[in-house]
Amino acid sequence: MLLRNAWYIAAWADELRGEQPLARRICNEPIVLFRDGGGRVGALADRCCHRAAPLSMGTVVAEGIQCGYHGLIINRSGACVHIPGQRQIPEDARVRSYPVGEKDQLVWIWTGEPAQADPATLVDFPYHNDPKTWPNRHDVYPIKAHYMLMVDNLMDLTHLGYLHARTVGGNPAAHVDAEMKTVRTPTGVKFTRWMRNSLPPPSYVKAAGFTGRVDRCQEFEFVAPSTVLQWTGAIEAGTAFADPERDFRFQFRLFHGLTPETDTSCYYFWSVANGYRQDDPSATEQLYQEIAPTFVEDRVMVEAQQARISELGEAGLVDIASDTARMQMRRIGERLMAKELAVAAK
Amino acid sequence: MLLRNAWYIAAWADELRGEQPLARRICNEPIVLFRDGGGRVGALADRCCHRAAPLSMGTVVAEGIQCGYHGLIINRSGACVHIPGQRQIPEDARVRSYPVGEKDQLVWIWTGEPAQADPATLVDFPYHNDPKTWPNRHDVYPIKAHYMLMVDNLMDLTHLGYLHARTVGGNPAAHVDAEMKTVRTPTGVKFTRWMRNSLPPPSYVKAAGFTGRVDRCQEFEFVAPSTVLQWTGAIEAGTAFADPERDFRFQFRLFHGLTPETDTSCYYFWSVANGYRQDDPSATEQLYQEIAPTFVEDRVMVEAQQARISELGEAGLVDIASDTARMQMRRIGERLMAKELAVAAK
Amino acid sequence: MLLRNAWYIAAWADELRGEQPLARRICNEPIVLFRDGGGRVGALADRCCHRAAPLSMGTVVAEGIQCGYHGLIINRSGACVHIPGQRQIPEDARVRSYPVGEKDQLVWIWTGEPAQADPATLVDFPYHNDPKTWPNRHDVYPIKAHYMLMVDNLMDLTHLGYLHARTVGGNPAAHVDAEMKTVRTPTGVKFTRWMRNSLPPPSYVKAAGFTGRVDRCQEFEFVAPSTVLQWTGAIEAGTAFADPERDFRFQFRLFHGLTPETDTSCYYFWSVANGYRQDDPSATEQLYQEIAPTFVEDRVMVEAQQARISELGEAGLVDIASDTARMQMRRIGERLMAKELAVAAK
Repeated sequence: MLLRNAWYIAAWADELRGEQPLARRICNEPIVLFRDGGGRVGALADRCCHRAAPLSMGTVVAEGIQCGYHGLIINRSGACVHIPGQRQIPEDARVRSYPVGEKDQLVWIWTGEPAQADPATLVDFPYHNDPKTWPNRHDVYPIKAHYMLMVDNLMDLTHLGYLHARTVGGNPAAHVDAEMKTVRTPTGVKFTRWMRNSLPPPSYVKAAGFTGRVDRCQEFEFVAPSTVLQWTGAIEAGTAFADPERDFRFQFRLFHGLTPETDTSCYYFWSVANGYRQDDPSATEQLYQEIAPTFVEDRVMVEAQQARISELGEAGLVDIASDTARMQMRRIGERLMAKELAVAAK
Repeated sequence: MLLRNAWYIAAWADELRGEQPLARRICNEPIVLFRDGGGRVGALADRCCHRAAPLSMGTVVAEGIQCGYHGLIINRSGACVHIPGQRQIPEDARVRSYPVGEKDQLVWIWTGEPAQADPATLVDFPYHNDPKTWPNRHDVYPIKAHYMLMVDNLMDLTHLGYLHARTVGGNPAAHVDAEMKTVRTPTGVKFTRWMRNSLPPPSYVKAAGFTGRVDRCQEFEFVAPSTVLQWTGAIEAGTAFADPERDFRFQFRLFHGLTPETDTSCYYFWSVANGYRQDDPSATEQLYQEIAPTFVEDRVMVEAQQARISELGEAGLVDIASDTARMQMRRIGERLMAKELAVAAK
Repeated sequence: MLLRNAWYIAAWADELRGEQPLARRICNEPIVLFRDGGGRVGALADRCCHRAAPLSMGTVVAEGIQCGYHGLIINRSGACVHIPGQRQIPEDARVRSYPVGEKDQLVWIWTGEPAQADPATLVDFPYHNDPKTWPNRHDVYPIKAHYMLMVDNLMDLTHLGYLHARTVGGNPAAHVDAEMKTVRTPTGVKFTRWMRNSLPPPSYVKAAGFTGRVDRCQEFEFVAPSTVLQWTGAIEAGTAFADPERDFRFQFRLFHGLTPETDTSCYYFWSVANGYRQDDPSATEQLYQEIAPTFVEDRVMVEAQQARISELGEAGLVDIASDTARMQMRRIGERLMAKELAVAAK
């Protein structure tokens, strides 16, 4: 079961341009995304109301999207506005349209009850708009696993020492022994991990030229239902600020947004922003190249995990100490789902 | 649900030769086709009556087909006529055989009630046998869509201006504004489309050297349940005969036969016959090369359409003006199906 | 339905070494196999008790296997013995373990009632341990067919003349007319086939330099539920011993062990042992190269057979004379299954 009354990321803003529409399946529904002649995003059920051809095989035109089979045009509100060879357009020539919102380089979609779609609740991530201070690069990975398995992954970082041992992880003990502080926020939960006086991973040395031990800090903010905003910094040991997110000599931000495609697959929208050598495009690129294969390791693992859960369920699984933040996160999701079901049952 | 009491094309006649049998799934049943030592076509359930090995993995022999596993021989009527190492052949050593008919270079099969299989009702297309007047070339495409979606495709030609815009389609408006006349026939429905005084598509110019506008005419005869016989002609504007199918300077014939493989897949048997430069084999070849990629465009579209219909059904779809002939055709099919179900219910 | 209270081969002994575990699905259950620091084999459900990650994606360590996601260590009895960052290990942190046995270069597993797993009933095949007298080579083929279809295959050798006509089969009549003697054994059934005064297949000539006719003998011992031990010999016609398995000038042994992966797939563990030119490694290799493609022919056929049985069942199939040993073998399996079901129903 998927939470429907929620904003999910449908696309990166720059994926929608030109006459080529974008097909995505979101919450089990085939959807076509496009930007009409006015530059406004449309999200429609990807099925023409004439003969069920996918609209995503059509062409974006000024008024909306034109079906590639018999030429009907549907606008972003779902109304058919043109039928070749026919003057009168029947009222029931309509395609379902979805509420959308565009903010901070992301296009969000609402597949639940349209009346509840409030653009004020779209996640903030202004760094995407600030290439001077936070030059960034983004991507989207399709993953064959329930989207919450990727959120789980981000909420228990002890996996870094095992799953990412050969990439960004470094020493398992450092991650296991990290000093963790978890706090609730109005929209989710946030944790801070300090690894003080620790050896910097090779990638940190390469990026920032550390010569000795560092104070390393990570801040992860989960925003329900499935966004995680990450800040990571490191500085020479003993010189760290008490308040993370002050300017550390080496720091970067990651954006993680998970969108359910089906009950057992999702899209992983992520970006990386360079906060330490902003004038050097190669630093941003290097950071991206460092992170990208790590997320492939996560993908491979959660896909394997999904296969087991799909077959055998979760009965008999045990929670361990490092699951604390993850479990808080899950409880928030469960409360949202319970609320949605209660409203639906009325 | 598939109409069973009907002749469907099982193969092109020239597909059955030599010792290699042909495996096809027709109306959801795995079938093996072959030509025995007497040149007669056999169509059997593709499962040996001994250990269920597919007979299509065996070898055609004079008496029938020999299983490739333990050597049993089954003749075209389905009787086992040889068991290695055994004199007596049990009476129940039998494989289901299907009525077949061969006509005009096509092998037809009947998967319904055998007693109703009347060879007199096989579709006529004598042009296949007349390589002097109608030199022709044929092919078969497997398509992952219900066979009637391809018949739909052929009965609403407004799709030419959109789906085939980059190939044979030409100007959408010409197709939309074509003068249509539809008539019932004893076995289906037939429509004629005139596009008078219109610009010839580039392929027509290439084939027939037109220098100005043409009168263009298309005749499509649907023969239930799933054959479409097409004639197309063009001639200098103003010189066309009132009666299509008289000798136009540029003319060709297409044969379209659709056979259900499963509920969501089919075989598309088609041929193209050159009626304008009969002595020039390269003209026939050029026509074939022109048409073949167009039918691939149709395949891609109807497969996508099938995917949507399989998932979302056809609820909420609207018929438009250009669906007239298609809807007549569908009603004929529905009447045949209703009749078949009524008989079955007795 | 699969017989569960039985030893099945899980792996060749030499497949388990190093830090890379082995993933196999046996009797529909995903299982991880490994050899711990003490050299002892472990077989566990391939699902970590923390977050369901496949343990087979982890690493073999001295104490057992370490999950590749968050680092838990599970020993060969299924107990969790290490949780990173946590002193106390909860008692329910356990993974199901399976009884295993190692004998004659094979690792066997028992997926049924553990109390019934008696190592004394493991199949004997000491030739695997005797590289001086029986130099041998082994392999394992995954096959998409019920494991008993491969046992069927081995119990009706008339298929050699058809399925293997182009490889080791030779003349069909020789196989059909072979003199067959079938006897029950305490653990199964055994048959001997004599093809006296017959032309040796080309491969025999190549291996042993026969210049004329031979007496050829094959002995197949089925050991329930799914092992077949084969001895094959040939000697100049008229000089054969009455007792097979005495030293024939040309002789080899094959081991065939079938393990159900799922209801419609299996693993085919097989070895070939050279008993005629023991000092010549190229003779063993040549024998292996001769046999390997033959078993691929079997695989292709039983996979096709499975597809038909999965779709159409076995209704209407007839048994023939050459099925005698196969049917005895099947009845033994049916009795074991009936016994298992009767016990389960208590």
